[in-house]
Amino acid sequence: MALKKKVLEDLQVFLPKKAFLVDEQVSNRKAGGLHTEEAIQAEIIVRPESTEEVSKILSVCNQAGQPVIVHGGLTGLVYGTRTSPDQLILSLERMNNIEEIDPIGRTLTCQSGVTLQNIQEKAESENMIFPLDLGARGSCSIGGNISTNAGGNRVIRYGMTRDSVLGIEAVTSDGTILSSMNRMIKNNAGYDLKQLFIGTEGTLGIVTRCVLRLREAPISQNTALVGIENFPSIITFLKHIDSGLGGNMSAFEVMWKEFYEMVTNSLDEKSLPLKKNIPYYVLVESMGSDQVKDEEHFESLLQKALEDSVIVDAVLAKSEKERKALWAFRDDVEKQAQYGPTVMFDVSLPINEMEEYVSKVDLNLQKYWKDFHHIVWGHLADGNLHLVVGTGDLESDTIKKIENSVYEPLEFIGGSISAEHGIGLEKKPYLHLSRSEAEINYMKALKDTFDPKGILNPGLIF
Amino acid sequence: MALKKKVLEDLQVFLPKKAFLVDEQVSNRKAGGLHTEEAIQAEIIVRPESTEEVSKILSVCNQAGQPVIVHGGLTGLVYGTRTSPDQLILSLERMNNIEEIDPIGRTLTCQSGVTLQNIQEKAESENMIFPLDLGARGSCSIGGNISTNAGGNRVIRYGMTRDSVLGIEAVTSDGTILSSMNRMIKNNAGYDLKQLFIGTEGTLGIVTRCVLRLREAPISQNTALVGIENFPSIITFLKHIDSGLGGNMSAFEVMWKEFYEMVTNSLDEKSLPLKKNIPYYVLVESMGSDQVKDEEHFESLLQKALEDSVIVDAVLAKSEKERKALWAFRDDVEKQAQYGPTVMFDVSLPINEMEEYVSKVDLNLQKYWKDFHHIVWGHLADGNLHLVVGTGDLESDTIKKIENSVYEPLEFIGGSISAEHGIGLEKKPYLHLSRSEAEINYMKALKDTFDPKGILNPGLIF
Repeated sequence: MALKKKVLEDLQVFLPKKAFLVDEQVSNRKAGGLHTEEAIQAEIIVRPESTEEVSKILSVCNQAGQPVIVHGGLTGLVYGTRTSPDQLILSLERMNNIEEIDPIGRTLTCQSGVTLQNIQEKAESENMIFPLDLGARGSCSIGGNISTNAGGNRVIRYGMTRDSVLGIEAVTSDGTILSSMNRMIKNNAGYDLKQLFIGTEGTLGIVTRCVLRLREAPISQNTALVGIENFPSIITFLKHIDSGLGGNMSAFEVMWKEFYEMVTNSLDEKSLPLKKNIPYYVLVESMGSDQVKDEEHFESLLQKALEDSVIVDAVLAKSEKERKALWAFRDDVEKQAQYGPTVMFDVSLPINEMEEYVSKVDLNLQKYWKDFHHIVWGHLADGNLHLVVGTGDLESDTIKKIENSVYEPLEFIGGSISAEHGIGLEKKPYLHLSRSEAEINYMKALKDTFDPKGILNPGLIF
Repeated sequence: MALKKKVLEDLQVFLPKKAFLVDEQVSNRKAGGLHTEEAIQAEIIVRPESTEEVSKILSVCNQAGQPVIVHGGLTGLVYGTRTSPDQLILSLERMNNIEEIDPIGRTLTCQSGVTLQNIQEKAESENMIFPLDLGARGSCSIGGNISTNAGGNRVIRYGMTRDSVLGIEAVTSDGTILSSMNRMIKNNAGYDLKQLFIGTEGTLGIVTRCVLRLREAPISQNTALVGIENFPSIITFLKHIDSGLGGNMSAFEVMWKEFYEMVTNSLDEKSLPLKKNIPYYVLVESMGSDQVKDEEHFESLLQKALEDSVIVDAVLAKSEKERKALWAFRDDVEKQAQYGPTVMFDVSLPINEMEEYVSKVDLNLQKYWKDFHHIVWGHLADGNLHLVVGTGDLESDTIKKIENSVYEPLEFIGGSISAEHGIGLEKKPYLHLSRSEAEINYMKALKDTFDPKGILNPGLIF
């Protein structure tokens, strides 16, 4: 199978030469995804520079029944950008224009190929923030963030990507331009169609432009790393600090002790912020309006938790450098490479089920292996845990056993197999664990409504 | 036209007698809506007590092509609950069970007939809040709040209803139960179908149960009423206070001087918090974590605004009683009755367009009338203004002229004809001003996908 020749001829009629990448310009690129150096399999990348060009491209492809795979920053973790030679890649990399920033309405309008970091920096230049933040900020595109409803580090305070998108322009499979570039926080004039393009992984339409909601920059920031002896105390501490901060908590990241070991085992014990082998470590952060008063208050909350033995140790960052150093431990996920090949998970479940869930996964893994690495951390206050499991190899049978071990106890407690990464190709076989047949049927009905020929990111999700 | 007899017979097979209301039990009820005492026109109200009963009812109605109008608390403002004799009313009033409150996961699970106030009180009993709040709290139902994506007083801090709904159980037209009772903040496992039932006014399915997100109760609350001389200073003050509060601002309600006059003209000038005839009044509120420190900080921000002549006067509530008294002015919308029959609007538009927009509406009204009342107030920081216009009568020609005067200047600036009230029957003729033909076509396509026979709330929105 190869790309339909007629499609290429039709596209060349209205697209300039620079819009096309071919041969080694394509094959030198990686396909994207964790732990893989696989090259792109498609033969051609088309790079429009406007919504109108995207519309014309899809119109041609839809008529020809040509499958299209959408590429943003290629930082997704569920193989949503994999291609085969018969598919056309539509990359939004040339649509990287920030069109407007409005400091009064607190909005930013841009094309969908702009990187998250460029958006953050533009907002900061006007003393505001775009609150979405995640490790891939420098290369991920806002279109990809929207299409996957990205989460990240500040969800507990500011919500998922969905909560920061006011307007969307999208092109559906037949080339129809749906321009819902709303700039207001409130707009209940009929169905809110933009919701359909958020988190649907490019299967219902291609997001080409958006209006983002900005926030005033917080004035103070306080960050601490605390050690906790047992899981019930994590819950007590979460309630204590979240209610004590009166809504100002902006992060509550928990690391199981194996995670702390993983990110610190190359370091001298004396240089560590907290000693090793405490069962749990929590990175907690608040954002507020007065550095001195807020720090006093934050410290008094930590002090109280220490006095009540809810936490056993705590270190408060006293400078931006110290704050970054604490976050560096949390963010150093790539240290998992020291354990050889691993499989990574992104599950969500009710907080009060987490302790038992992690034990059950452990027991499941013990049925198959004596020695394995099972590392757990996550945005606990969001109900989101990440798990990494390494058992020595990544044979398909191994992966299946690992996946079963992790997902089997999740279904019963109503958890989700994907908290923030999406489904893509990787998690598709397990979608039925988190969604009922009726739900999946309606997803398919929506797909049929928006993309009757199934040309947009075919094969993803279901 | 009358209700299909076969439908009633089929329903009586599985529903108990108490599920039905007939004759004067129905005709004694009001149909709902502002300024109307109109009685319900439908002949029968069916009151299921479970999702399964709703499913069976819709299955019967869908087979018979029987139109169904859904009733919650009947507090909507756009005639979304009007009926005719051939329609069946399905009321959720008996589905008023709060099933669970989870103080750790910070969720509340309930049936959709529960009133907003009961949910608020249940949350408060566990030292949390359900942040959605609006005047009709005592009688509106959460199902109606969800179906209309209700807004209210704390949107700037906590978002619309959409932002507080984690899970939904809904029944689609053919009786299919779509149970997406997610309890986690994050769940990206495939399409987020619940979004389709939020703000679609019961046209795609009937919401029967939900999981709501609760928040820790704020510890401090500070409220002030300030006077401002001109519109640009409102914007300066908004930026000053919102950035100064570092994200803790929970309300920014603006009243044009005619509104302040309307709610105070029966009162002695000496008993007023601020003197009359200041061009604009702003009710501003913050929620934080430390009453003493936060009040100091709030007061210093007001002091700075006074020194810089951004505001001309300010009064800070020093007790809960004073706080309530300030809000009472803002909430006393019913005082508009003193001006005779009026038409009320709920528009949204970019903040920096508001001053000119209100002038244009005024000029438009002057083309038709010499004397009229034009009262403006709103959740300004959300981009949401309410307008009330009274010209002496409510003849259909009068209403049309008023509507044209208000909506004509809105289309050009990309505003919305409905910020938070929805479209219903009332605003349907104007939907095209805020939504493109492509958008409306896709709304209709969604309706066809979820309700191919068009039995659910037929005639609403488009």
